[in-house]
Amino acid sequence: MKLETIELPDFSASFDLYLRENVSSDLSHLPVVVICPGGGYRMVSGRESEPIALAFLSQGYHALVVDYPVLAETSQVTPDYLDTNTRLLAEVFKQIEHNYEQWTIDPTAIFLLGCSAGGHMAALYANKWQETVQTDEPRYSKPLGSILCYPVIGFNYGWPAEGVLDPSELKDYDTSALINPDTPATFIWHTADDSSVPALNTLKYCEGLTQKAIPFECHLFESGKHGLSLATRASAESQEAQHIHPPVAKWLSLCVDWMERRLSK
Amino acid sequence: MKLETIELPDFSASFDLYLRENVSSDLSHLPVVVICPGGGYRMVSGRESEPIALAFLSQGYHALVVDYPVLAETSQVTPDYLDTNTRLLAEVFKQIEHNYEQWTIDPTAIFLLGCSAGGHMAALYANKWQETVQTDEPRYSKPLGSILCYPVIGFNYGWPAEGVLDPSELKDYDTSALINPDTPATFIWHTADDSSVPALNTLKYCEGLTQKAIPFECHLFESGKHGLSLATRASAESQEAQHIHPPVAKWLSLCVDWMERRLSK
Amino acid sequence: MKLETIELPDFSASFDLYLRENVSSDLSHLPVVVICPGGGYRMVSGRESEPIALAFLSQGYHALVVDYPVLAETSQVTPDYLDTNTRLLAEVFKQIEHNYEQWTIDPTAIFLLGCSAGGHMAALYANKWQETVQTDEPRYSKPLGSILCYPVIGFNYGWPAEGVLDPSELKDYDTSALINPDTPATFIWHTADDSSVPALNTLKYCEGLTQKAIPFECHLFESGKHGLSLATRASAESQEAQHIHPPVAKWLSLCVDWMERRLSK
Amino acid sequence: MKLETIELPDFSASFDLYLRENVSSDLSHLPVVVICPGGGYRMVSGRESEPIALAFLSQGYHALVVDYPVLAETSQVTPDYLDTNTRLLAEVFKQIEHNYEQWTIDPTAIFLLGCSAGGHMAALYANKWQETVQTDEPRYSKPLGSILCYPVIGFNYGWPAEGVLDPSELKDYDTSALINPDTPATFIWHTADDSSVPALNTLKYCEGLTQKAIPFECHLFESGKHGLSLATRASAESQEAQHIHPPVAKWLSLCVDWMERRLSK
Repeated sequence: MKLETIELPDFSASFDLYLRENVSSDLSHLPVVVICPGGGYRMVSGRESEPIALAFLSQGYHALVVDYPVLAETSQVTPDYLDTNTRLLAEVFKQIEHNYEQWTIDPTAIFLLGCSAGGHMAALYANKWQETVQTDEPRYSKPLGSILCYPVIGFNYGWPAEGVLDPSELKDYDTSALINPDTPATFIWHTADDSSVPALNTLKYCEGLTQKAIPFECHLFESGKHGLSLATRASAESQEAQHIHPPVAKWLSLCVDWMERRLSK
Repeated sequence: MKLETIELPDFSASFDLYLRENVSSDLSHLPVVVICPGGGYRMVSGRESEPIALAFLSQGYHALVVDYPVLAETSQVTPDYLDTNTRLLAEVFKQIEHNYEQWTIDPTAIFLLGCSAGGHMAALYANKWQETVQTDEPRYSKPLGSILCYPVIGFNYGWPAEGVLDPSELKDYDTSALINPDTPATFIWHTADDSSVPALNTLKYCEGLTQKAIPFECHLFESGKHGLSLATRASAESQEAQHIHPPVAKWLSLCVDWMERRLSK
Repeated sequence: MKLETIELPDFSASFDLYLRENVSSDLSHLPVVVICPGGGYRMVSGRESEPIALAFLSQGYHALVVDYPVLAETSQVTPDYLDTNTRLLAEVFKQIEHNYEQWTIDPTAIFLLGCSAGGHMAALYANKWQETVQTDEPRYSKPLGSILCYPVIGFNYGWPAEGVLDPSELKDYDTSALINPDTPATFIWHTADDSSVPALNTLKYCEGLTQKAIPFECHLFESGKHGLSLATRASAESQEAQHIHPPVAKWLSLCVDWMERRLSK
Repeated sequence: MKLETIELPDFSASFDLYLRENVSSDLSHLPVVVICPGGGYRMVSGRESEPIALAFLSQGYHALVVDYPVLAETSQVTPDYLDTNTRLLAEVFKQIEHNYEQWTIDPTAIFLLGCSAGGHMAALYANKWQETVQTDEPRYSKPLGSILCYPVIGFNYGWPAEGVLDPSELKDYDTSALINPDTPATFIWHTADDSSVPALNTLKYCEGLTQKAIPFECHLFESGKHGLSLATRASAESQEAQHIHPPVAKWLSLCVDWMERRLSK
């Protein structure tokens, strides 16, 4: 296994590469999951970084965790901030394209995962990746699938709390309205009683996917607080934090089954 | 085990009771699942009758399958037809109330399940049960939970095909608009690529549940034709009919886990 | 669904038939599970009768529960008693052969299941079925598979308690010593800390199966009292009886997966 | 995450540490799995090294893979070779004891896992660890549990092929005969039709565990070739090598459930 941190100074960002040893004799390149942890665009959650990377590594994927820049306490989400994050993900995909041989990554099998605000960031890229491509290159900018965990979909669905933002300024960043024929197949989940980022976000995105006939799978579990990550001991902050929740922890095997079906198509 | 068919001549209907032997020494009454099979209001599907009843019997529930009247080929769905079905389900609940001791049913633990058009019938009752109660009796008219399998939610979401009905006449029967604080907790599932009854039906219902803060769980599987029932050999019409689909068959254990959590509340 | 009780007066026995409706258009006959409940040859346990029948019915099997004669309190297990039980099971298989068209049973797909002492009864038949065949008929005497749940395998492995029996008189009824090339493939499970019928019984049987190269699958769960049946609410005598034990309840899906693989061979 | 290789020059050996980041605020130390890959004492299998380490890392465990010395082609297994391996594992435990603070390992929660010949190595240590302790130190030499995957248990149960060894010289290394009250609880699995290391090995070990009343869990799956490791794509050498086998892949979740129960005792 190799661990490497790649700096992206133009973005004040970096990403952590987790490259597993390949034990296969006939697959020289492995699929990868690019992970955008959550944190309300204010921090990058450790509970949604390495624990999720390891979950996919154990299933035969490489993983890459994006450490994107976050907003200062006094700043608000702006179009510029969001656009920069989209360009940052475009840069990550470009880096994969340029280094896939060395990193033994299959560039046609890049899954893009995001949690909470990181889900918004991932969904933005998933719907705008084609705009980031100026020339014939990069060739591998389209994720094979996007995986959205309790995502923020737009700024008009209950997050952030009323009054914090003027949603009209961010109306172009409602990702459910950006879905188009180039949007990748999507796996999306939420808890129905999420009181921080309402499940309405996920429902709106699914409605958009349905309208454009993009293949998707969606699981809304009845209960569970926001930010459960894997919902197991492996991602729990504390034994008492209600972070261990077996009914919700099923999302991972449902997701991996879905990914394996996509790989075999 | 006892099998019994109860005739409801006022409704040209009947229901089949499947009452399992109770092996428990401390539970004298068991929860029950009332099943409304699908069939487009044109037939009552056998694949969604006994196979589903047996699935819940095996988990420690009694089951009851409603054989409701269906429309002739030349007739259309009318408000009157739908209202009669709601009264029919009210009658089924009343019969349970009057006979629960003899049938060893726990009248506080009645789940109401419907598939496809039967899902519409179940959802109508789930949202209007309180209107069917004139007096103090019946006391046990509210389902403990409703279970909607690839349901028709309203007549404006892609079923039936355009031109068949005038949806404006049936706009009061869009069940997603009827959701209210008395609506029971709901488990709902669909396949995202259902080309007969679009998944949009389920999304609209979830949106309604969210708005009224009714607890729910929803699973949208990526693929699978309409009418999968259990999606196992036990409900397949034919080995070649694409009725056996393991990714979708997971709905049953997800549902039973959800039911057991409700029972233990 | 049809329920029927068939009397076998020559044996002071009977069996209950649970015949599910067949919803398949291309399978006219279904596999069946013949169930021998446990009870120490002193009673026939209700918790291992209908609950187990329903578990297999729900998976697309017919079920048949054998109500075999039990010993009076003052009597001991004798060769004669055991031989009669073997002939009784031969009679059950003969009845299936004679009635399979009417019962819609596939006579080439009969699984024989036994719990505890019923497991001994099933294992005896599984190893001696060919001795019960005198002529060309019956043709369908060999089970497609035997399923042994916390079985008594012989009388020298801890059951009954020392002093109750003289094991030397029953040494020919150690089923692990009777395994032969005609023994059917076997699924067998036990809890490792069973203090009533020790897991040694199952280990001895597996050793015998290994020596004769009979295909088998065995699951020994770490803990759980004797007689758990399904280990779920559906077979629990009481909420407090430690009869609900999720780690052990996995045996059923492991077993059904195994059965389906046998059917598809 | 930290990767580190610790050299053990006295043994011409080393071990690879995989230390995950701890996201918990109330658990400062994590359980660990010490992994002895298989390879017939002739090589150390990569397919049983990192893939298994990652499987446990993803579940909230640290992992440690032992790269033990192997025999030259012309050499035979000798008591001296085996004894050295036992001392090597004692050294690994000692290193953990000395460094557990730095490595954030909970020294009371060390699981010892071995595959095939590595299972023999692990079982030897599991039964002789107390002999390796001369003084009060080390205090943490007893594994919390041992996990044996298709293990070689002794040299008289079909491996190696007849004639290769004189089993009488190695009769003291039949680990099933070494089981004693200090043997840790054990999880053990095998495929029943393993034609390289027969399942008889596992049955003999279980019999020994039963006799000494050591808690254990055992799963013998009906079919699957020797050396399946995780039996998933993540450990498969090739898509065509029959290394992907879903029925057998269930061992991992059964094992992790068992480990979590031990941790919570």
